[in-house]
Amino acid sequence: MKAVRLHHYEEQPKIDQVQEPKITGPLDVIVRIGGAGLCRTDLHIIEGQWAEKSGVTLPYTLGHENAGWVHEIGSAVSNVAIGDTVIVHPLITCGLCRACRAGDDMHCSNSSFPGISVDGGMANFLKTTARAVVKLDSSLAPKDIAALADAGLTAYHAVKKASAHLYPGTKVVVIGAGGLGHIGVQCLKALTPAEIIVVDRSPEALALTKSWGADHMVLADGHHVEKVLELTDGQGAEAVIDFVGERGAEHDAVRMLRRAGSHYIIGYGGTLNVPTIDIISTEINFIGNLVGTYNDLAELMTLTAQGKVTLHTAMYPLDAALDAIHDLDSGNLRGRGILIP
Amino acid sequence: MKAVRLHHYEEQPKIDQVQEPKITGPLDVIVRIGGAGLCRTDLHIIEGQWAEKSGVTLPYTLGHENAGWVHEIGSAVSNVAIGDTVIVHPLITCGLCRACRAGDDMHCSNSSFPGISVDGGMANFLKTTARAVVKLDSSLAPKDIAALADAGLTAYHAVKKASAHLYPGTKVVVIGAGGLGHIGVQCLKALTPAEIIVVDRSPEALALTKSWGADHMVLADGHHVEKVLELTDGQGAEAVIDFVGERGAEHDAVRMLRRAGSHYIIGYGGTLNVPTIDIISTEINFIGNLVGTYNDLAELMTLTAQGKVTLHTAMYPLDAALDAIHDLDSGNLRGRGILIP
Amino acid sequence: MKAVRLHHYEEQPKIDQVQEPKITGPLDVIVRIGGAGLCRTDLHIIEGQWAEKSGVTLPYTLGHENAGWVHEIGSAVSNVAIGDTVIVHPLITCGLCRACRAGDDMHCSNSSFPGISVDGGMANFLKTTARAVVKLDSSLAPKDIAALADAGLTAYHAVKKASAHLYPGTKVVVIGAGGLGHIGVQCLKALTPAEIIVVDRSPEALALTKSWGADHMVLADGHHVEKVLELTDGQGAEAVIDFVGERGAEHDAVRMLRRAGSHYIIGYGGTLNVPTIDIISTEINFIGNLVGTYNDLAELMTLTAQGKVTLHTAMYPLDAALDAIHDLDSGNLRGRGILIP
Amino acid sequence: MKAVRLHHYEEQPKIDQVQEPKITGPLDVIVRIGGAGLCRTDLHIIEGQWAEKSGVTLPYTLGHENAGWVHEIGSAVSNVAIGDTVIVHPLITCGLCRACRAGDDMHCSNSSFPGISVDGGMANFLKTTARAVVKLDSSLAPKDIAALADAGLTAYHAVKKASAHLYPGTKVVVIGAGGLGHIGVQCLKALTPAEIIVVDRSPEALALTKSWGADHMVLADGHHVEKVLELTDGQGAEAVIDFVGERGAEHDAVRMLRRAGSHYIIGYGGTLNVPTIDIISTEINFIGNLVGTYNDLAELMTLTAQGKVTLHTAMYPLDAALDAIHDLDSGNLRGRGILIP
Repeated sequence: MKAVRLHHYEEQPKIDQVQEPKITGPLDVIVRIGGAGLCRTDLHIIEGQWAEKSGVTLPYTLGHENAGWVHEIGSAVSNVAIGDTVIVHPLITCGLCRACRAGDDMHCSNSSFPGISVDGGMANFLKTTARAVVKLDSSLAPKDIAALADAGLTAYHAVKKASAHLYPGTKVVVIGAGGLGHIGVQCLKALTPAEIIVVDRSPEALALTKSWGADHMVLADGHHVEKVLELTDGQGAEAVIDFVGERGAEHDAVRMLRRAGSHYIIGYGGTLNVPTIDIISTEINFIGNLVGTYNDLAELMTLTAQGKVTLHTAMYPLDAALDAIHDLDSGNLRGRGILIP
Repeated sequence: MKAVRLHHYEEQPKIDQVQEPKITGPLDVIVRIGGAGLCRTDLHIIEGQWAEKSGVTLPYTLGHENAGWVHEIGSAVSNVAIGDTVIVHPLITCGLCRACRAGDDMHCSNSSFPGISVDGGMANFLKTTARAVVKLDSSLAPKDIAALADAGLTAYHAVKKASAHLYPGTKVVVIGAGGLGHIGVQCLKALTPAEIIVVDRSPEALALTKSWGADHMVLADGHHVEKVLELTDGQGAEAVIDFVGERGAEHDAVRMLRRAGSHYIIGYGGTLNVPTIDIISTEINFIGNLVGTYNDLAELMTLTAQGKVTLHTAMYPLDAALDAIHDLDSGNLRGRGILIP
Repeated sequence: MKAVRLHHYEEQPKIDQVQEPKITGPLDVIVRIGGAGLCRTDLHIIEGQWAEKSGVTLPYTLGHENAGWVHEIGSAVSNVAIGDTVIVHPLITCGLCRACRAGDDMHCSNSSFPGISVDGGMANFLKTTARAVVKLDSSLAPKDIAALADAGLTAYHAVKKASAHLYPGTKVVVIGAGGLGHIGVQCLKALTPAEIIVVDRSPEALALTKSWGADHMVLADGHHVEKVLELTDGQGAEAVIDFVGERGAEHDAVRMLRRAGSHYIIGYGGTLNVPTIDIISTEINFIGNLVGTYNDLAELMTLTAQGKVTLHTAMYPLDAALDAIHDLDSGNLRGRGILIP
Repeated sequence: MKAVRLHHYEEQPKIDQVQEPKITGPLDVIVRIGGAGLCRTDLHIIEGQWAEKSGVTLPYTLGHENAGWVHEIGSAVSNVAIGDTVIVHPLITCGLCRACRAGDDMHCSNSSFPGISVDGGMANFLKTTARAVVKLDSSLAPKDIAALADAGLTAYHAVKKASAHLYPGTKVVVIGAGGLGHIGVQCLKALTPAEIIVVDRSPEALALTKSWGADHMVLADGHHVEKVLELTDGQGAEAVIDFVGERGAEHDAVRMLRRAGSHYIIGYGGTLNVPTIDIISTEINFIGNLVGTYNDLAELMTLTAQGKVTLHTAMYPLDAALDAIHDLDSGNLRGRGILIP
């Protein structure tokens, strides 16, 4: 089969011909890929930012945002059958450790992460397990929802945490109206009655968020912190959901917080830098967010099936993977890029 | 009456003769001070660190950690009577804003803070309100428990937040075995089944914590992060309660955290400095803490009455306030310093 | 002034000429009534069902669902000014007990309940306190929102509790599409992504709920439990919000529950009757609900101002109070009855 | 091997010679039984009370409270090895349904319950799965802790739920000082700072609870509700944990509740019978409890290893199972009965 494989850091991946994956364990599932999302993290992987954290051996196949159809199953798989349409939770988890038993899949102590630490889904087939596949209605096309597997899941997970504190009358700031922010705003609208303020550098991206449910759009023009404070009666917002986490967004977020407010960090690249006296005198919080649980993904797929979350995507054949990567890197990719084998 | 008043930042306060406070509002309460705690924050105030945040007009009376007996009450006070023994919650709150109505007294939008933003309790009498006084059993001596009003309350508040996540088998690190750490360890023992690891620079301070319930004592000798990791099977602790927040403790704390763990920040002076990739890849949290609620103080007084929390104190006459300040500043004050008018 | 007063149980109230209330305490507030809601509880009071629980001395003025304008204030009132439009939280609370300090106003240990235990608002003026009045935008007409003070608040309070467990994919049953159910469905829509199933005996009442956001309408025709089970894949619903609580609804609710589901009891009159083996073998819960907190009322008014909650009302002059009572009792009152002085 | 098998309801089980269980699935685990607890539920099973709910086909082997050593494992088992000491969670769960993925093992939609719906552990060997075995320190003897697998787990699960509401100053009533109450009191002591009031009919049972941490012992002599109200200043308790659930305890519990309090139902046999007006006017709750999760069992084993929970047991050889059953039924079994193959 074909696969988009990274051979060397700081070099573009290649489209190789490789062996199809095989079932080796009783809970293994082979998914025939219908769509594999392209993510800014793929660029960071190519640049080598994840080299140390992932420990992956090159070459390997990229792609951590996958959907398709069940192609083959191990002897003990009971939750899906061959031919089922599925979206793939990004982690392969053991199901037996404390974290898995508590529902915190992303903290599984024996996990692997296809597309990051083992072969991923930018290929004809992906090997995962029964614990990672969420069965979908057969009317859904994998290519249309693949980007929910990671970008969507991450946005939903952070929004769900924040939603516990967002009662009527509260205000929430979303920093970044790109792929994740797009889904984040829709999830906020579906889960909470909070007033939604979106901040972004692009007037076009901001304009789009209005139809998704944003109540206020603020251009990141250097005066955006002041504008957010105006929109919040000078108090700041109960929650700031930061899908950027770099290039100053991580500092702006802190200034937009109300007393006792929480800064949800999803984007990365920058460094949080806050005097402890500022943290204690206002009792603010900083909340890390890492993908989401299997049940989070199932809940997000329910919202999608109900029409409450939709995606903007740009389709590329798998063979055009390098074009897609180039378009993402150069800022010419509108919506989420999806590779179709 | 006598009062310990600050006239100029970076100069020692003076003991002045001033007018006694008067009842002016229906919910006012005048407390005859039985004991006023001396706190490291008093040193920071003298140094001018709080000048901008508090906006107080000099001269004014220090003392934000007070207990005594009700001396006079306003016309609408129904919860205490003249002569009652009381401990004084550090904040004067309005009782009518959203935060007060939610029980989050410390986020009252119309509060004042005796000893920080208005006249405090290092004097014969303190003016506060019905909403700030917790009635105590008459057997308790104000001088013995005054330090619980702020140091104790702050430690309890942070421990209570952490306790929601500390089930059997979890581990919690307490950084700092001084006044707050002392109470924090006892509160952890009373509220949680977690294993308690205490870190401090002083072997004597560490030795004391054993009797309060610490399970492991780690000397902060430069290898303490590694020792904590050893004690937690290389995983780190579910919670790190940082009573220091400066001189490197705020960085050590982050390295001692388990995946999905939380760093509770109480001490201050330093700066939190964490790459966002480290926050999201392990999904850790940073939780600010600011004194505590009125109900927190009442709960802490219950623990004290039950003998579960005790205090080490060093008594000074009010006239010797400057000696006490000098002893605290020079590291010669063992236990919490209490001024007795 | 005029007031609708109950002189004897099981007899209709009379419209008497009485003294206007006077300010006696520093936190007192006199409200000029713009609208006073009529509630099924008023019928129960007249019937004597509350005689023992309320301990009220007859005669007294009915009316526990009030809105209007601030007419006079005590010396210490700072949150409202004369002329402000306000809705009145049904309880007068002390602000000093543990429950008040925790935000649980309805469990205040020193409360009174105008219209139930002391004189209420079916009159020109009502005496309450600063702690009970929620200031509204002056564009709102008291007569249009008075019914939210109790019926609305009660529905919101129960829905808010349930919402913590209603994630995407869950189902919630609302029993009763009358005054409270009307508001309950709108609150569910505003706060949760759950699928909403409404059960009622009246096809007209059911038809109305569709526009408020109900996903499924089930006629209570004797087969309604089976229909709810069908709509929930034979599993039952995660939450049943029972606004009836009598005439069999309280038993139907139990049969509609999913394993680990919760039955929220708001309506009353019947008796819950469940074998303990059924409670433990499915781990179901029964959750009592009593009006709501002051902050709940403020949140509900936010939803109203945002257009997310609207009311159907039928206006009567105060002089026609007995007609309104008669219409409610005989089933001829459509929407919530409001008396206008 | 030998097994205690039920052939007909309302007849005593027999000790049969049967085939040893075999590994058939990749996650199967065969445990060599070191101790199998005897439970009042076994008496109820023999009486036929569970016939309809369990749907089990007779004859089958009793025993749902098991501990021992791993004897044989399926091909995909990675969390235990042959020879490991283990305690067995009572349910066999799928690991793939929503409930399993959320950590709510007891609501698995594809579970079986050895000893209730399939062959249990009153035998030489038990067949369960990798998901049910909790690995223990090899110093623990299975016979000493087997009773924690169900009785202990159930008590811990209910106490853990209650503990979220039991802050310093609250009071909790434990009804029933038998096998479960014994463990419940110790768990309350380990997890909460609440004052513990134990109610039982037996002065001997009550006397024992003092050493486990009970603060007050109340003899169930007909005046016990009044005595509990006296001990709670006439208010009732924040939580009543009812390990009896029959013979009037289920009614007493309701009368012992404070406003907003919760009645945790664990024991069964009786019928909850409460007017809905009493539920709403005090806003009380009834909380069902069913065994507990896998992580609950692991946490309880941590408490046991820490010496915070201990058990009183009476050992019988497996061959004397009928004697043990007779002793339990006739009230002559002190502590928890354990059968040892």
